[in-house]
Amino acid sequence: MKKVVILGAGNVATHLIRAFQASPETKVVQLYNHDATRLKDFEKEVATTTNLSKLAEADFYLLALKDDAIKEVVKKMPLTGGIVMHTSGGKSIKVLSKFEHYGVFYPLQTFSRSREVNFREIPLCLEANSPTTLLRMEALARCISENIYEIDSEQRKALHVAAVFANNFTNHLYGMASDICARNGVEFEILRPLIKETAAKVEVLSPAEAQTGPALRGDKQTIKTHLKLLKRSEKKIYKRLTSSIRKFHGKKL
Amino acid sequence: MKKVVILGAGNVATHLIRAFQASPETKVVQLYNHDATRLKDFEKEVATTTNLSKLAEADFYLLALKDDAIKEVVKKMPLTGGIVMHTSGGKSIKVLSKFEHYGVFYPLQTFSRSREVNFREIPLCLEANSPTTLLRMEALARCISENIYEIDSEQRKALHVAAVFANNFTNHLYGMASDICARNGVEFEILRPLIKETAAKVEVLSPAEAQTGPALRGDKQTIKTHLKLLKRSEKKIYKRLTSSIRKFHGKKL
Repeated sequence: MKKVVILGAGNVATHLIRAFQASPETKVVQLYNHDATRLKDFEKEVATTTNLSKLAEADFYLLALKDDAIKEVVKKMPLTGGIVMHTSGGKSIKVLSKFEHYGVFYPLQTFSRSREVNFREIPLCLEANSPTTLLRMEALARCISENIYEIDSEQRKALHVAAVFANNFTNHLYGMASDICARNGVEFEILRPLIKETAAKVEVLSPAEAQTGPALRGDKQTIKTHLKLLKRSEKKIYKRLTSSIRKFHGKKL
Repeated sequence: MKKVVILGAGNVATHLIRAFQASPETKVVQLYNHDATRLKDFEKEVATTTNLSKLAEADFYLLALKDDAIKEVVKKMPLTGGIVMHTSGGKSIKVLSKFEHYGVFYPLQTFSRSREVNFREIPLCLEANSPTTLLRMEALARCISENIYEIDSEQRKALHVAAVFANNFTNHLYGMASDICARNGVEFEILRPLIKETAAKVEVLSPAEAQTGPALRGDKQTIKTHLKLLKRSEKKIYKRLTSSIRKFHGKKL
């Protein structure tokens, strides 16, 4: 049985706890959080502590913390023979270098407390300070996911930016679309099948192959009509993305 | 049996033909296209013509044409007692006003020739020149889809712009993410579960509720790190969308 201590009680920590508790090969032996109120929801499932000097013995210590909190928690954590890992896409592996065995255990997914996710489909991006540590981390990762990748700190940084485009910015475009609908008395739900298919298409086609629309076609008349309907801030984004699509596909507007 | 003539042989026409032929209540009695070579693929399934003066008798004439081609085809089409409709998100219903019964039959989806779609899930946005025509169009639409909306020309224009954000621009963001991955030796497939979940989230949450990331959090350090990894054109889009997210959620950067 692989023993895991989780540090943090946010969305990532919540989903990791569920995934490890669901696996027959892993057990979350303790949950740490600096704020006791956040621990209340978990007390029935797992032992909890707010004291870093009272961390339980474990094979793995998983810091599922906000980027800003990692440094402080690492500083206060006692040394351990277990493998200490963080889950951050943006932080280097080096922030953990005071430990003997350490690594990064980055699940590339967007987590909401209220939404169940199938953890087995989530890509886990691993980096370790040694080949032995990597092997042990891979064994842990395989208990909860089928998509395991070895990704170094530089690659992970790039992946983190790419994820901002594919998730945060994409969701914001949905938000703008929703706003345009609301202003014109149209239900946003009409767009939902389109959003679903847009995402499904890139499961089988490359985004370049899947591109369509007035920007790609160079349909100036439609673009002009569209701009008239937009607010100033939306216009700027519409123009910027339209010209970016043209350039991306080697065309001139 | 509702008889339908389809005009056009592109992606939308192809999917409409399949949907109508699959329904026991509708039959495509003829397919028109100005270019005979495009008709070859359909000759086994349906009667074809390249001559607008030889259009078959039908209850519905569906112009699934490029926006630019609609005007010319309408001009050359003989008058008819059937209902004449176009499938364009961007064109007004008025372009069909020479006919007695006319309307718009706009399927809000992104179509690729190579990808099967479940037409029953596709929202059909209808507009008609009279209540009677609308009822007859609704009866036709119900044969192939379960999502039918009455949408006027102004609303449809707004929906068409919103669709550009939710589909064309979103797909372009996937393209940029894919580029960032390629430059850094990371496989784009690692992002696919994230893309899928981002789209799935807005099936149950509003885009505003689903928003996450460094822009929303105001995490300047991460934003700075990200900008360093980007090309000039990507930087501009990153900055523009980051500040748009801040404004959208009533925050200052």
